[in-house]
Amino acid sequence: PNSLLAATGTTIFTVMSALATRHGAINLGQGFPDTDGPEDVCRAAAEALLDGRNQYPPLTGVPELRAAVAAHNARFYGITADPDTDIVVTSGATEAITACLMALLDPGDEAVVIEPVYDTYLPVIRMLGAVPRVVRIAPPDWRLDRTALAAAFGPRTKAILLNSPMNPSGKVFDAAERAAIAALLAQHDAYAVCDEVYEHLTFDGQRHVPLMTLPGMAERCLRIGSAGKTFSLTGWKVGYVTAPTALGPLVAKAHQNLTFTTAPNLQRAVAVGLAKPDGYFDGLATTMAAQRDRLAAGLAGIGFRVLPSAGSYFLVADYTPLGFTGDDDAFCRHITEAAGVTAIPLSAFYDGPDAPEGYARFAFCKRPALLDEAVARLARHF
Amino acid sequence: PNSLLAATGTTIFTVMSALATRHGAINLGQGFPDTDGPEDVCRAAAEALLDGRNQYPPLTGVPELRAAVAAHNARFYGITADPDTDIVVTSGATEAITACLMALLDPGDEAVVIEPVYDTYLPVIRMLGAVPRVVRIAPPDWRLDRTALAAAFGPRTKAILLNSPMNPSGKVFDAAERAAIAALLAQHDAYAVCDEVYEHLTFDGQRHVPLMTLPGMAERCLRIGSAGKTFSLTGWKVGYVTAPTALGPLVAKAHQNLTFTTAPNLQRAVAVGLAKPDGYFDGLATTMAAQRDRLAAGLAGIGFRVLPSAGSYFLVADYTPLGFTGDDDAFCRHITEAAGVTAIPLSAFYDGPDAPEGYARFAFCKRPALLDEAVARLARHF
Ligand SMILES: CSCCC(=O)C(=O)O
Ligand SMILES: CSCCC(=O)C(=O)O
Repeated sequence: PNSLLAATGTTIFTVMSALATRHGAINLGQGFPDTDGPEDVCRAAAEALLDGRNQYPPLTGVPELRAAVAAHNARFYGITADPDTDIVVTSGATEAITACLMALLDPGDEAVVIEPVYDTYLPVIRMLGAVPRVVRIAPPDWRLDRTALAAAFGPRTKAILLNSPMNPSGKVFDAAERAAIAALLAQHDAYAVCDEVYEHLTFDGQRHVPLMTLPGMAERCLRIGSAGKTFSLTGWKVGYVTAPTALGPLVAKAHQNLTFTTAPNLQRAVAVGLAKPDGYFDGLATTMAAQRDRLAAGLAGIGFRVLPSAGSYFLVADYTPLGFTGDDDAFCRHITEAAGVTAIPLSAFYDGPDAPEGYARFAFCKRPALLDEAVARLARHF
Repeated sequence: PNSLLAATGTTIFTVMSALATRHGAINLGQGFPDTDGPEDVCRAAAEALLDGRNQYPPLTGVPELRAAVAAHNARFYGITADPDTDIVVTSGATEAITACLMALLDPGDEAVVIEPVYDTYLPVIRMLGAVPRVVRIAPPDWRLDRTALAAAFGPRTKAILLNSPMNPSGKVFDAAERAAIAALLAQHDAYAVCDEVYEHLTFDGQRHVPLMTLPGMAERCLRIGSAGKTFSLTGWKVGYVTAPTALGPLVAKAHQNLTFTTAPNLQRAVAVGLAKPDGYFDGLATTMAAQRDRLAAGLAGIGFRVLPSAGSYFLVADYTPLGFTGDDDAFCRHITEAAGVTAIPLSAFYDGPDAPEGYARFAFCKRPALLDEAVARLARHF
C-alpha cells in the first residue's frame, strides 16, 4: 500500500460529520448548506436526464457549460476565455485542484502553499513528487508576512496554490497582497492555481477579484470555480477551470486520467444557473452574510471571541474565553458530545508543528433557525 | 508544465470522435451506446434531484448504493463485502482505477500491465513515480505467454492491472490464465486492480469470473465496476470499487483527493439499477451479442477478417484483406473521411515499438440500423 496515504488519516470533515451524526449534533463542521440551491437549476438537471443525452459528453465539458463559464467570467470579471481551449469542466473543485497541480508540477518542483491549508493540497503535491513550501498565516489577524512569502519562492518554484476567499479563515486577500503575489509569480516565472470556489461569497460590499485579472497574470493563473458553492448544491461535484490557452490542454489531459468527464445533465443545469441575473449572486452573498452575522452574534454572546470573516462559508472563533482548557480537537469533540453542536478544529488545517491553538471553525451556511438552535445549545452548555 | 503530460497527446477517443463529428461519420470509435439505458433508472435519478438530498454524500458513497454494490457482488459472484468498509463509490471507473493505483503504488514500485492497454493506465502509473512492466498480447489470438507474464513479476512488483473482459481485444481471460495470475500474486505478495467494467458484457453463455473469487484472492484484489457500462449510461460516471477491508480505507483516502464524492442523485439511481432482476443483465448481454454478430457478419461480408470477441463493447478486425496499405491510424482516418465510418486504430493501445499493425477496433454498442448503415457505407466504399 502507498505509504503516504497509509500515514494520513481520513479527512477531518468526514470524521467530524460522522461524530455529529452519532451524537445527533447540529453539524456546523463540514461546509455544506442545509438548503438545496435554486429549484429551476435542480429541475433543469432532472429534465436533462430524460432527453437522451446520457452518454459521454466531450472531455472538457458540454459546450453549453463551457460557454456559460466563459460568459460568467466576462460578466463578473472582464476575463476573456475561449470556451474551446481555455475552459475545462471537472468533477468538482477537488478534482480541478488535483488536475491543475498535475498539469503544472514535475517531480522535484516546489509549490508554495499558504497555511491554514485545505486538506487535499499537501497530499496531492507530495503524491506528484513535488515539494510544498508552506507559508503560515495565523489568527487572529491572518496577516501575510511578505518577507516569509518571498522567502518561500526560489529557483524550483513552479506554482503557488492560492485560496481566496479562504477556507477556513474567511480571509479575502487584499489588493496589496494580490499585487505582491503577482510580482513574485512574474519574477520566478511561476503559475498560480487559484481556488476561488467562494468567489460569490464575499461580504460587506467587497467584490472578489481573481488574481487572473491582474496585469500579466492571465497567462499564469488557473482559476477554479465551483457550482456546488455557487448554487448551494455541494453534492453535484461540478467544477470548472479557466486556463490560459497554453495550459488548458494540459489540464484537460490530467482530467482525462482522473475522471475523463462529468455527468452531462448536471453540467447542463449548471449552465442554466450561471446564466442567472446578477440578483441571484448578490442575493446568495447577502443571505450568507446575514447568517454569518447571526452566528457571530450568538457565539459572541456566549463568550467566544469571534474573528471577522470577509468571505466563504466559515468563521473562526477563539473558545479560550469560555474557560475550556483542552486543545481544539478536544474542544470540537467536547461540544459535539456534550452540547450537540459540531465544529472543526482549526489546527486540522495546519500541517507543521506549533499550529495555532484555541480556535474552532464554524460553518454558517445554514438556515437561521438551525444557527439559533446551535447557539442555544452552546449557551445552555457553557 | 508537467513534462509527462506535455509529451502525451489527447486521448485517441476524443481525437477520433472529433474527427467523426467533423465528417458526419458514424462513430464506431469511442465506446458508448447510442441508446440510453433503463428509463426507470433515469427517472429515479431525476426524482432524486428534487427531494433535498443534493449536498455532499458520504465520502465512500450513499449507503443505498454501497449496499446495492455489495448485494450485486453477492448475487452474481458470491463475494462477501461489508458496505461500510469495503465499497468505495467513485466518479466513474477511470477515477476508480486511478484511486486504486494511488492506494497501492509507492514511487519505485512496479506494476504489471497487459498490452493492449487502456489509455489512462500507463500515464497514471508513471505519474505516481512507479514503473510499468508491460506484457504484450497480440492479435489474432491474444495469447498470454505465461513465461513472459512470470518474467514481468519481480521483487519490486506491487500490482497487476487486469482488464477482463478486455478492451479493445474482446478477450475474456480464461480459468487457466486467472489461476496463473493468482499464483503470481501470491508468490510475489502483490495486488490486482481488476478493471471489470464489462462484467455484464460477456457473450455466448460465458459468465464473468472476478479474479477476486479465486482462493486467497479476496485479500489481494480491488475489483472495479461501472454503472456507465452496466446501464448504458456512460455519461453518468459512477463507478465502484470492492476492496478487502485492509485496503478500502486507502482507496477512500485516494478518492478523497481526487473527487471526494459523486452526485447523490446518480448514486441513488444506480442503486435502483443494481437491484434489477437477473433478466435485465442477461438481456443486456444478449442484445449486445446480437449487435456484435450483426457487425461482425457485415464486416466479414466486405472482406475484413473479424476476430472473435467474447466480451466488451468491441471487436477487432484485420483490414489488410481489403488491400489498404497504410497503417491503422491512416486506415481509421481514411474510412472516417472517405466512407463516413469511424473506428479506433488498434496500435493506439500499444505503448511500445512494433505494435501490431493492420487492425482497427469497432464498437458494436449501437442500434442495429446504425450498424447496418455503417456496414453499407463501408461496403459502398470498398
Ligand atoms: C469536501 S468536504 C469539505 C467541505 C469543505 O470545503 C469544508 O468543510 O472545508
Ligand atoms: C472514456 S472515453 C473511452 C471509452 C472507452 O472505454 C473506449 O472507447 O475504449
